[in-house]
Amino acid sequence: MSRKQKLYEIIFEADTPKGKLFDVALLVVILLSIALVILESVPSINANYRELLRLLEWCITILFTAEYILRILVVQRPSKYIFSFYGIIDFLSVLPSYLTLIFVGSQSLVVIRAIRLLRIFRILKLNRYTVAGNNLKLALQSSREKIFVFLFFVINVILIVGTLMYLIEGPENGFTSIPTSIYWTIVTMTTVGYGDISPQTPVGQMLASVLMIAGYAIIAVPTGIVTAEMVRSSTKSNTQVCPRCLHDQHENDAAFCKKCGRQLN
Amino acid sequence: MSRKQKLYEIIFEADTPKGKLFDVALLVVILLSIALVILESVPSINANYRELLRLLEWCITILFTAEYILRILVVQRPSKYIFSFYGIIDFLSVLPSYLTLIFVGSQSLVVIRAIRLLRIFRILKLNRYTVAGNNLKLALQSSREKIFVFLFFVINVILIVGTLMYLIEGPENGFTSIPTSIYWTIVTMTTVGYGDISPQTPVGQMLASVLMIAGYAIIAVPTGIVTAEMVRSSTKSNTQVCPRCLHDQHENDAAFCKKCGRQLN
Amino acid sequence: MSRKQKLYEIIFEADTPKGKLFDVALLVVILLSIALVILESVPSINANYRELLRLLEWCITILFTAEYILRILVVQRPSKYIFSFYGIIDFLSVLPSYLTLIFVGSQSLVVIRAIRLLRIFRILKLNRYTVAGNNLKLALQSSREKIFVFLFFVINVILIVGTLMYLIEGPENGFTSIPTSIYWTIVTMTTVGYGDISPQTPVGQMLASVLMIAGYAIIAVPTGIVTAEMVRSSTKSNTQVCPRCLHDQHENDAAFCKKCGRQLN
Amino acid sequence: MSRKQKLYEIIFEADTPKGKLFDVALLVVILLSIALVILESVPSINANYRELLRLLEWCITILFTAEYILRILVVQRPSKYIFSFYGIIDFLSVLPSYLTLIFVGSQSLVVIRAIRLLRIFRILKLNRYTVAGNNLKLALQSSREKIFVFLFFVINVILIVGTLMYLIEGPENGFTSIPTSIYWTIVTMTTVGYGDISPQTPVGQMLASVLMIAGYAIIAVPTGIVTAEMVRSSTKSNTQVCPRCLHDQHENDAAFCKKCGRQLN
Repeated sequence: MSRKQKLYEIIFEADTPKGKLFDVALLVVILLSIALVILESVPSINANYRELLRLLEWCITILFTAEYILRILVVQRPSKYIFSFYGIIDFLSVLPSYLTLIFVGSQSLVVIRAIRLLRIFRILKLNRYTVAGNNLKLALQSSREKIFVFLFFVINVILIVGTLMYLIEGPENGFTSIPTSIYWTIVTMTTVGYGDISPQTPVGQMLASVLMIAGYAIIAVPTGIVTAEMVRSSTKSNTQVCPRCLHDQHENDAAFCKKCGRQLN
Repeated sequence: MSRKQKLYEIIFEADTPKGKLFDVALLVVILLSIALVILESVPSINANYRELLRLLEWCITILFTAEYILRILVVQRPSKYIFSFYGIIDFLSVLPSYLTLIFVGSQSLVVIRAIRLLRIFRILKLNRYTVAGNNLKLALQSSREKIFVFLFFVINVILIVGTLMYLIEGPENGFTSIPTSIYWTIVTMTTVGYGDISPQTPVGQMLASVLMIAGYAIIAVPTGIVTAEMVRSSTKSNTQVCPRCLHDQHENDAAFCKKCGRQLN
Repeated sequence: MSRKQKLYEIIFEADTPKGKLFDVALLVVILLSIALVILESVPSINANYRELLRLLEWCITILFTAEYILRILVVQRPSKYIFSFYGIIDFLSVLPSYLTLIFVGSQSLVVIRAIRLLRIFRILKLNRYTVAGNNLKLALQSSREKIFVFLFFVINVILIVGTLMYLIEGPENGFTSIPTSIYWTIVTMTTVGYGDISPQTPVGQMLASVLMIAGYAIIAVPTGIVTAEMVRSSTKSNTQVCPRCLHDQHENDAAFCKKCGRQLN
Repeated sequence: MSRKQKLYEIIFEADTPKGKLFDVALLVVILLSIALVILESVPSINANYRELLRLLEWCITILFTAEYILRILVVQRPSKYIFSFYGIIDFLSVLPSYLTLIFVGSQSLVVIRAIRLLRIFRILKLNRYTVAGNNLKLALQSSREKIFVFLFFVINVILIVGTLMYLIEGPENGFTSIPTSIYWTIVTMTTVGYGDISPQTPVGQMLASVLMIAGYAIIAVPTGIVTAEMVRSSTKSNTQVCPRCLHDQHENDAAFCKKCGRQLN
């Protein structure tokens, strides 16, 4: 096994002890780097430890840059890695630090490194989490149309109620424009309710009450959609695979493949 | 094919390339017109571009009016279109602009044009969204009685708790009247919680606590109702019966009976 | 049919046209009486129409008193009616008005009349709503134990987090006592979030964040409990009754009674 | 039966009348002790009854200490009790009172005694609540992976949106640091919405709107996960197989096979 291949196994895989160690170390450094950015933004800490934090950040950035270049070098088809999901995230993780040389303040954007934490699932028992993630993705995908119809309906309600509230309450009660009024409608319908703007006229309060009850009850719809899909897919959690057509989504009580009619084991 | 028939296909249908183009153009203009109304309400934009926005709005209104008249002309039975759901929406979409000639401020009501965006489902793969929408409608319809009973219960709780809070807290703590107190109860029970009014007395805070926990837990009921209905409808959306073993619980994509392997129709 | 019997049919039943008319009239008067109480609490209306509102209220109270006495007279076993659910509500509906002769302000308590609106289900197609209500009741009853365990857990969390927040934030940040702190915990965990009290220290905000995410996610538990119960009961919506043992909760695909083994039709 | 054995039965079990009485008395004292701590924290009560409350608290603490020592004495293997869940809770329940001799203010920590209330399930019909609790635990356990994936996703969103809001709004609008901004993101995404910090810039309000709708809709995911698991576990909680026709989907209360009428074991 060539040296490049060994490095590939360490950097890209998590099966060998060294590979696992590399990934754990990487996760620790990512977490540390996120903590640094968060700490740097706190005025009292920034005032006292700015130099130290900056130094540590640059160390980590150089480390990540080296790692990124190494990944490109050891992988067989660099272009495939570079334009893969992980490749792009790895690149975006080092970019903000270099951007600070040009734009002040972009440093905070390194929190995008949080997405690199996805590698944690490689260290944990990979398969179970991949299955869990795929199940979630499938359930959400197959409820796509219903959720789209639901969102369309909700956006319409928000637009119309937002405009009505602007007409009813008007700028003197804090509803200074339709965008502000739409913002208030979203804050209310999602039951967040900041209270920075709130209706003052009786008619406005009445419409707001209807909106709140609607927003409160309407949550039942997306929940119902997603749940029904998950219940349906959980009855298909069977691991049987048809020996002829390889279809693998059979219900628990299936004795024959529903796609080709072949008997299942 | 007569000219009227050709126009009908372009305006009312979305199957031909021209028909699709017409619908896409229409959607763009609708979105533009909504954007105009929203922008016009922003004081800083209104101060600088009022003339331009007004001009554009009148252009769009004339366009929509022309389209509305055209629709009436090319359709076979005008009265059927005029009193259909889409016909009424199309009419209401042009009305507010003309009303501004009489009443100031009614311009904002053109956001009702948002409902015209429903035509988007004609351009997208129509059928899948219609099915999704119908499924949602059916599930909500068959849970109508339960939701009605639930709402009756909730309204009673709101009326009684609202009055009690008025008696307990009184006008000196912001609960100036029973309608205000009911408004607060709705704000609290739906977990919106503006904070413009909040109980100050220990007894009031205790009752409010019970109300909040009730409101928090009670959401389980409509969610349960809708979800159970959706689960039920998603498991029995297929009416196929196996001609050999008469098993009748097949999934939608089943080509063979999962119990005996016989091909389904 | 004696006159007493005729009156009984009109007052207590809703099958005959006269009975239906009586119930509709009753509902209208109840709604009117609730509206009166609500209006009376509004300062501006009270200042101008106090006399009129009082007069109308006394008319309605006398009407309800007469109706209550009539109900006792025409029913066969008065004691059974008086101590029934409806009998107690009818009595409590007239009580507050007479109490105002002794205690000022108790007038508002007549909103308890809202419960009398339950009679609306007698006018609507009775059976469907009774079934819907019973289904809800059954589903909630059979999830009683789980909800009790869940509530126990939630109350413990509220007690402990409430006390911790009092220790962390202290009176200087608005957490003036443990009851206040517990009140804040409930406001936060149920995602109401008034904002009248909010944590100021970093540790307090961290604990509050964990509490919020917990409160946000934990709602899945009661929802799951109630929904699972409703899904289960909706698969038992079968109307088959065992001819031998009269058991009536059979699944849709049952061919034999699960209680006594008798073949079902 | 030795005296030690008798005491063991009274203190550790709830089957005998004496054992039940002991447990009920214990619960009452626990509740009383929690009430004392809560009352003591209220300034007006503390000012007047401090001495009395302190005295009662010390009585209860001595009682609990005696009970703890007694439990160790009567149990067969003291070390097993001491390091069991209940043993640790019992120890922690008396600790804070003694700590007040050293640290002022730690008295409030005796609310940990609330966990001792778990013994209530021993007095109530034990089994039903244990089953309910276990069902909940199982359903939550088997949805562990999915919930972990979901939480990972949510934390990433919170980190990234929190940082973006800090960059967009900045310290002048209350987003003084990234931790504060993350705190605001959690407050908003969980729909708590205190309103102590709220976005002021149009871009910030737009991002906040997206966050709110996401937070509002995303609750469907954990709810769906938990519900699907509960539905699944509630439908297959029975392992009985009909000895004649081998049908294996029986309800828990089935005494006869619903398919062939054969008696089940």
